[in-house]
Amino acid sequence: MFSRLHRSKNHGTCIARTLRCYSTVPPKAPSPTSSGYSLIGCIGAAAATGAAGLYLGTQLSERKQPQPPSGAALGSEVNALQAPASIPNSDYENEPKPGYYTEDDKPMHERMECFVLDLQDRLVTALESLEPSKKFLRDRWQREDGKGYGISCVLQDGVVYEKAGVNVSVIEGTLTAGQLKSMRDRNPQTAQKLDVGEEYDFRVAGVSVVVHPRNPYAPTAHKNYRRFELYRKSDKAAGPVMAWFGGGADLTPAYLFEDDVRYFHQTLKHACDAHDTAYYPRFKAWCDRYFTNIHRNETRGVGGIFFDDLEDKTPEQLFRFAYDSGNSFIRAYVPIVARRMAMPYSVRERNWQLLRRGHYAEFNLVYDRGTKFGLMTPGARIESILMSLPLTARWEYMNKPDPGSPEDRLLQAVRTTTEWAK
Amino acid sequence: MFSRLHRSKNHGTCIARTLRCYSTVPPKAPSPTSSGYSLIGCIGAAAATGAAGLYLGTQLSERKQPQPPSGAALGSEVNALQAPASIPNSDYENEPKPGYYTEDDKPMHERMECFVLDLQDRLVTALESLEPSKKFLRDRWQREDGKGYGISCVLQDGVVYEKAGVNVSVIEGTLTAGQLKSMRDRNPQTAQKLDVGEEYDFRVAGVSVVVHPRNPYAPTAHKNYRRFELYRKSDKAAGPVMAWFGGGADLTPAYLFEDDVRYFHQTLKHACDAHDTAYYPRFKAWCDRYFTNIHRNETRGVGGIFFDDLEDKTPEQLFRFAYDSGNSFIRAYVPIVARRMAMPYSVRERNWQLLRRGHYAEFNLVYDRGTKFGLMTPGARIESILMSLPLTARWEYMNKPDPGSPEDRLLQAVRTTTEWAK
Repeated sequence: MFSRLHRSKNHGTCIARTLRCYSTVPPKAPSPTSSGYSLIGCIGAAAATGAAGLYLGTQLSERKQPQPPSGAALGSEVNALQAPASIPNSDYENEPKPGYYTEDDKPMHERMECFVLDLQDRLVTALESLEPSKKFLRDRWQREDGKGYGISCVLQDGVVYEKAGVNVSVIEGTLTAGQLKSMRDRNPQTAQKLDVGEEYDFRVAGVSVVVHPRNPYAPTAHKNYRRFELYRKSDKAAGPVMAWFGGGADLTPAYLFEDDVRYFHQTLKHACDAHDTAYYPRFKAWCDRYFTNIHRNETRGVGGIFFDDLEDKTPEQLFRFAYDSGNSFIRAYVPIVARRMAMPYSVRERNWQLLRRGHYAEFNLVYDRGTKFGLMTPGARIESILMSLPLTARWEYMNKPDPGSPEDRLLQAVRTTTEWAK
Repeated sequence: MFSRLHRSKNHGTCIARTLRCYSTVPPKAPSPTSSGYSLIGCIGAAAATGAAGLYLGTQLSERKQPQPPSGAALGSEVNALQAPASIPNSDYENEPKPGYYTEDDKPMHERMECFVLDLQDRLVTALESLEPSKKFLRDRWQREDGKGYGISCVLQDGVVYEKAGVNVSVIEGTLTAGQLKSMRDRNPQTAQKLDVGEEYDFRVAGVSVVVHPRNPYAPTAHKNYRRFELYRKSDKAAGPVMAWFGGGADLTPAYLFEDDVRYFHQTLKHACDAHDTAYYPRFKAWCDRYFTNIHRNETRGVGGIFFDDLEDKTPEQLFRFAYDSGNSFIRAYVPIVARRMAMPYSVRERNWQLLRRGHYAEFNLVYDRGTKFGLMTPGARIESILMSLPLTARWEYMNKPDPGSPEDRLLQAVRTTTEWAK
């Protein structure tokens, strides 16, 4: 894997972390304005004149806000926060496309590797644009058996981000019998293509992201894009037996701002619709099903999109969908953080946020496919797998918000299914 | 179940929460002194004259203590903490035995129900004796289908206890196919007695306890005692097809005080040895195996005892073992809290404690048999099942204590197996 990485540099795609290689592909159509949000500059300055003063975007002036309860306000450092005039990399549709986007003579696995490294870089830059106190730590690691590497980018204990992790991994290996069984069980089409008695090598390139902002009004978000290839064992030359894309993006607020949720969904839907108008409704429903804390009868958050085993179009079409969909996360999420990061809050909101993070940790440890797969894989890098867990979480016995309170409104939202996008 | 509860009152055992019915059974042999600890009164007063002044038990004067790092000390309220002159219920061997202990004409399930309710009451009283700020909340609940009840006693956000839960549940039902399979898979002897094609009713009475003290030097502890009975479906009259005891007790410190760990193990060993000298070594090794975060290659803490499917003696013998072993937890654990609760600490120790609580939450959510069983049981009371989770937990990326630091010493302890008892 490592030697291939160096080879990749030779054909000019942006595999090196500091190199961004744009081709001359013309930009696509302008970005949508139907959401009613401008994508950037919604906050010009975070004036310390009370909650209302923090909503400087005119589109947001009519929004109902939860009233901060009386009591000492935490997070006085937020008064100094100021969102940048524009959020880098949030306008992917109008930017020139990178080389790997068009190099259809290159193996798809290498193009995917370039894409996830590039997307990691773009996202880290976009997130860093809001954080005044520190930069991401960029931590490159390699499997001891040589079968893969990764780059974990982590920003911990910042002013805007309590914990944010953007992780790339490019791994290869041989499927265990258990992994083969679980893939076959999950999908009848996969089961048709893979023989129980056969052995398969795999390789996967993926990027996964979890952002836990400090401000309780700024939602947590997650996204993950990956491409899996399976080969008959020791027969890579014959090409993959099958290959698929998986991924998605979802939002987990502690407090419900309906406009934020609609904007997030609408932005993802726009990216999906450009490729297949059936995608968003299908992937939105899949997301609600998948990200459920079954034991609490609650979704983890307010959803987004989720898909797996995606192979219903040509690899080229699917790759371009993954590119747009992955990039749309920056546009869908980072402006929401910019909008919320400077809102004043008190102990009450912080406490509620930590309780919701407890539920987040429950989902990731009890249900999440990727986390469970990772924890059970000998030699896996636990620090990267568990990077998704919040910096702090809380479990109180019998915490029950007052009916009608802002906390209760969030609970109602995660106990029902809502169509957030038009 | 509820009506049986009321019937139970009629035969005079201490089923009512406020009633303690002692019989006139003579006390057993005096308690051990071999541990070198006096069981009570190790702390007369917690003077605020630095760490050394907090060790008032002469047996402890030679102990090496972790030095609090420079920096603002947290927990100034500890200066006011004072352990009681004696810890209630810690001398079970010399106390008169309760009625249910000797009533061998009564059904064992009812005696077990009395025992777990009594033990809950005794433990809550012992724990409350150290906490100046509040009492346990005692929360009685009932399954909606009528098939069981429980009492959850919780003390949250106290000065001494950050979160302590003592939960009794008395439940009946029909085993699902999955539950039957898991019981058969776990134990070949059980598999011989239970037919795959048969349906079985079960009832179980148990008490489970998790205590997370606030002071990082005071260890977390857990114990659980339960008795399971299986019947051929709808044929309780024929008596149980099989019945067994399960349980144990274990200690999870954030900082290693070897004397505390030796004392804890020695006290449990004493209780085991009175019944079978093979028990402690067997159950100690079982505990180390069971309470392991496999993905971290660490035990959850420094162990104790763990057993399940215990049916190798008469029910009477096993019940008396469960009684002694269950009661010994009070003696084994509460004096350690008394000894540690007033030690000064700073942000460094608090942070490390929260990181260790993160690992604790990982074990409970990823591996713990009881928690997983509960989460997957429709209609189960999630609040009681997840009472074991800490009030606060923390996950940092790549936290690595300095070699040789007190934090590193703890890590070494959970990465090796030590024989703590003589």
